[in-house]
Amino acid sequence: MNMKHGGDILSYSEQYSADLLDFSSNINPLGFPKGLKEHWMNTLGNVQKYPDIKYRHLKENIANYLKCDSEEVLLGNGVVEIIDSVMRLKDRVHLVYPSFGEYLDRALIHGKTVESSLYNADYSINIETLKAKLSENTILFLGNPNNPSGLRVEKKILLEIYNLVLDRDCILVLDEAFYEFCPEDYDSIELFRTNDFKNVVILRAATKFFALPGLRFGYGCTGREMCDFLESTRLPWSISYFADSSGEYIFNQKEYIEISKKYIKKERNFLLTELSRFKGIHVFPTDSNFILIQLLSHSEEEVFHFFLKHGILVRTCSSFQGLDFPCIRIAIRREDENKKLLTVFQQLLEK
Amino acid sequence: MNMKHGGDILSYSEQYSADLLDFSSNINPLGFPKGLKEHWMNTLGNVQKYPDIKYRHLKENIANYLKCDSEEVLLGNGVVEIIDSVMRLKDRVHLVYPSFGEYLDRALIHGKTVESSLYNADYSINIETLKAKLSENTILFLGNPNNPSGLRVEKKILLEIYNLVLDRDCILVLDEAFYEFCPEDYDSIELFRTNDFKNVVILRAATKFFALPGLRFGYGCTGREMCDFLESTRLPWSISYFADSSGEYIFNQKEYIEISKKYIKKERNFLLTELSRFKGIHVFPTDSNFILIQLLSHSEEEVFHFFLKHGILVRTCSSFQGLDFPCIRIAIRREDENKKLLTVFQQLLEK
Repeated sequence: MNMKHGGDILSYSEQYSADLLDFSSNINPLGFPKGLKEHWMNTLGNVQKYPDIKYRHLKENIANYLKCDSEEVLLGNGVVEIIDSVMRLKDRVHLVYPSFGEYLDRALIHGKTVESSLYNADYSINIETLKAKLSENTILFLGNPNNPSGLRVEKKILLEIYNLVLDRDCILVLDEAFYEFCPEDYDSIELFRTNDFKNVVILRAATKFFALPGLRFGYGCTGREMCDFLESTRLPWSISYFADSSGEYIFNQKEYIEISKKYIKKERNFLLTELSRFKGIHVFPTDSNFILIQLLSHSEEEVFHFFLKHGILVRTCSSFQGLDFPCIRIAIRREDENKKLLTVFQQLLEK
Repeated sequence: MNMKHGGDILSYSEQYSADLLDFSSNINPLGFPKGLKEHWMNTLGNVQKYPDIKYRHLKENIANYLKCDSEEVLLGNGVVEIIDSVMRLKDRVHLVYPSFGEYLDRALIHGKTVESSLYNADYSINIETLKAKLSENTILFLGNPNNPSGLRVEKKILLEIYNLVLDRDCILVLDEAFYEFCPEDYDSIELFRTNDFKNVVILRAATKFFALPGLRFGYGCTGREMCDFLESTRLPWSISYFADSSGEYIFNQKEYIEISKKYIKKERNFLLTELSRFKGIHVFPTDSNFILIQLLSHSEEEVFHFFLKHGILVRTCSSFQGLDFPCIRIAIRREDENKKLLTVFQQLLEK
């Protein structure tokens, strides 16, 4: 029951129900843009060819969407391939816990020295701790918004961190896989582009917002020189035909993008309001499409199995380093599904 | 014009013709199995979920096809991801030139010490050279059949190499991405399974034989312990929904597999016979679906551009280390396309 990742439905669906409602992985509940299936089918013959090894068209499409140059675009078989690549930039890695487990896993696989610090109790960054603990020549990973808290780094704090990063010849990796779910605020790409992304790598992905985790399509941007280096170490053809070709389609779905943002905003407000009425849990605020919930009177195991019996998979959080109290993380899903979750949660807490 | 890989159509199609006949990449000319499109479409909703992180069904399907256990199955986003992973097994790599350029590239990216030796002039392995040059504790890469020669290692020689590998605590990586194209002979999986794949990793792929280079789907097998280690270092979810789901389909297409093998055999015989009549080239024998051709009176550049003007892309070979004379490599394609290639080749040689 120690879940390293969300979305592992198969481990539970055979014992319980084939139609488990998966609240453990944080995917846009509206599903991928409707015309994508047709788009793929119309050019499916291309799966018989190697993708363009330089991904020229794809990089242009991403650059238009991110508002950067195609020479600044990084590609990955999911964001995790870029997380893996950036490990090559320095020998030392700094992680702020709790955060996405793959930062540590990939660092260890690459034999890096790992140092760490902790978020504040409200999951804001403690800049003083970071100043005290961040070594020179280190890759600093920050989820923005962070997983599992769902909170973004404030712009003012981000700029302070950036000055620290420049000062110590570090590299800041901002993992923004959940960017589009957040309320309007600063765009880190716009922000750091003014400095040619010096010592910054920004990661985005189709996985979460475009509801395509099975596609494996991550991307990002950084300065040209670092981009050239990282792209030269990436596996050749690591982006499939399906991911390559979806770049022409998904980024142009302006209506889908707008509707998704509004939908998440509405359901996030609804869930946060309703959950905050429950006794026995503490609900953390979030900028994203998932909510971290502290369990005040139940164990993770108890809650996990209660939900499972009612056909719902939630993400237990004991695998997150630096999270020393029982928690679950839930995704924001469709209105009726969120209501079902609330009903089951209420039953559990009133037991 | 220095081609590092075949299949880079985009670099030439804009200048020349959008319908370039690609003889530079070695793909089954019959295309992927017919029902695969429908198979994908029927379950396309699954692209909205993460693939099973343990790829349980996929590994069973591969194990059935390869005739090994699912605990012995390796997965990769193309074979090149497994080539990359195995670099973690030792600090030193031995390459026999000429061979697939990614062995060297990935070794260098991983900071390995690279030693090398050469094939004999007829592209058989020189076992005495290997005995003299293979260091202890080294990963030995062999294409079987090898690229660009297309030749398989003889069974007797392979067993000699294996004894050498065991003796020196090396690891033998047999890259068999073109396995199914070869005439019936020994099956290395059957061969090494009797010894639980001790110190051997065997690579296969859907890319070439099932005509799915855009899918990114490589696999292989090795002993359980090494398999566990390699699988634990692989990027999570590195195999897409499309590759995952195709495992249920392609390996069961017995008729497609038989027809493809017969087709390649017939066209290989035809091309080898016809090409051997041409003056000005030397044609090397091949076990695979591609043919290495030495140019006796033309430069690679000359030949490349002549073919290009006639709508045909061939693979120049100057990027292959250890190939010190002008060569091109051509794929075996459909009958009419092969005839077109012969016609153009004749025009060139009679000029």
